[in-house]
Amino acid sequence: MPQDPVLAALVGGDWRSGEALAAVLGVTRAAIWKSIERLRREGYEIEAEAGRGYRLLRAPDLLLPAEIARHFRPERFVGKIVHLDEVDSTNRLGIDLAREGAPEGTAVVAERQTSGRGRLGRTWESPARVNLYLSVVLRPALSPVEVPRLTLAAAVAVADAIGATTGLRPGIKWPNDVLLGGRKACGILTELEAEAERVRFVVVGIGVNLNAREEDFPPELRAKATSLAIELGRPVDRPAFAGALLGALERVYGEMLRGGFPGVRARYESWHVLPGRLVTVDGVPPVEGLVRGIDDEGALIVEAADGTRRVLSGEVTLRGVYPTD
Amino acid sequence: MPQDPVLAALVGGDWRSGEALAAVLGVTRAAIWKSIERLRREGYEIEAEAGRGYRLLRAPDLLLPAEIARHFRPERFVGKIVHLDEVDSTNRLGIDLAREGAPEGTAVVAERQTSGRGRLGRTWESPARVNLYLSVVLRPALSPVEVPRLTLAAAVAVADAIGATTGLRPGIKWPNDVLLGGRKACGILTELEAEAERVRFVVVGIGVNLNAREEDFPPELRAKATSLAIELGRPVDRPAFAGALLGALERVYGEMLRGGFPGVRARYESWHVLPGRLVTVDGVPPVEGLVRGIDDEGALIVEAADGTRRVLSGEVTLRGVYPTD
Repeated sequence: MPQDPVLAALVGGDWRSGEALAAVLGVTRAAIWKSIERLRREGYEIEAEAGRGYRLLRAPDLLLPAEIARHFRPERFVGKIVHLDEVDSTNRLGIDLAREGAPEGTAVVAERQTSGRGRLGRTWESPARVNLYLSVVLRPALSPVEVPRLTLAAAVAVADAIGATTGLRPGIKWPNDVLLGGRKACGILTELEAEAERVRFVVVGIGVNLNAREEDFPPELRAKATSLAIELGRPVDRPAFAGALLGALERVYGEMLRGGFPGVRARYESWHVLPGRLVTVDGVPPVEGLVRGIDDEGALIVEAADGTRRVLSGEVTLRGVYPTD
Repeated sequence: MPQDPVLAALVGGDWRSGEALAAVLGVTRAAIWKSIERLRREGYEIEAEAGRGYRLLRAPDLLLPAEIARHFRPERFVGKIVHLDEVDSTNRLGIDLAREGAPEGTAVVAERQTSGRGRLGRTWESPARVNLYLSVVLRPALSPVEVPRLTLAAAVAVADAIGATTGLRPGIKWPNDVLLGGRKACGILTELEAEAERVRFVVVGIGVNLNAREEDFPPELRAKATSLAIELGRPVDRPAFAGALLGALERVYGEMLRGGFPGVRARYESWHVLPGRLVTVDGVPPVEGLVRGIDDEGALIVEAADGTRRVLSGEVTLRGVYPTD
């Protein structure tokens, strides 16, 4: 449901008279007019006609909280969505909000990041108004030891949301890259503040390439990156995807809190592209071998020459031919 | 070595003429006089006599960086020590400094904490000018999964420092309480900021009861808390202890970075008081059984009725008689 009551009343595209809106919402007609003006400034196209009232013609192609909220009915999450046209990093802002006490599920979305961050100190390419940059504050009763599993669970949520909204078949490359046609469509950066034994908060940052075209990526990324629109041949509804993703994240997160990672593992494995592949995992020394899968703690199981290895973190390189799915 | 060159020249208690000090340090006699005045304001008792110069009679009983530095020669650590007469929490300040980029080994010491923090959201009783409240910024190349082991390593450093400076025989109660005569003499609060797979920084906060008397503890703590002075029957040199502890921490930390926790485990076990004891570890459900020891990942191994259990976090209660060592 949209959070704005006037917008909520206009969803569907039927004519609504100012008088009826004022009566139903218990405000003056002047207040209704002010709301209409604000919605128009946000990019909503709203027709007004004497005698008929107002009619919603088109919502803007923006990640507006009211639009996302039409596609996400929070249960555990607080439902608060902060939208910005531009921010340095949605995770940076999410962390600041979490430090100030933002409740579980507080979400930050931005049309553009000027300093988008990726895993291991990398940058995340964040062109304006085509993709999704989303960070969500979580406050799980977990030890820091369990947080990497949360990151795997977030990858499952992204794969679920892509599958449900597009019919595409995504793949997950351990730990948390989400691929389409062997190219990366999503990256996840999980950051936390904690005591040694318990998490204070986690911010899960998810960047999904939605409507980016090939030319939106820098040349050196084009062989490795893709978007939902590139794979589908048509653009996707960005706020609808954002809502679906928040719903999927809330669901997977709830499953993990109830049943631990084992409850999420089977779905992770259903999307996982590495089992049966020969890989190298960086480290000192690197681990080389055949991927068996993951275990109940989310570790990658690799059959190396010197025995079975459990890999807890690291960068996986496929030995042999790309693509990976 | 003291960081202040004039103080360094006076250590030992011999007379030094202003002229000689000025010549050796390459400054004016007026600058020497200013340094003497500053040292006096910090509590140093310095005698001055025409024709003989200056002589150090007594250092103040404060955790002054120059005094601590006389007992700690940093190798890996940066050696910077921030001293405060009062702070809300040394860990809070340590975290702020770490966020601003403070290098590894940056230490915060305070004479008093107004909001001293303990594990699991508890407070830490922090009376003025009798104990040690120390926080150290670390930047280990570890995953958050490994941070609890760092906290066990810090307990080893405290036990080492108590043993080396007093001859007392401390005990460690898993995970990181340090006990004397069965009562708690030290608490450790480790906090971290991290990505899911790598630590950005850790702040290890260590509170050690040094010269607190029984009456410095609130009545409800007197049966459970003690200090080095209570156990020894005489006060200890606080800056000397702080320096010894920084040295022990740097050493144990270095061992852990080189060899992982297995390199520290044997020393932990040499101080550990729980093996062979019947315990209850809180949790849902609680774990009850006989402690076998710890493993290479720092987990507590408990023989329960339904088999061997690895406990990663939790509060241990002894079943049966206190004290524990």
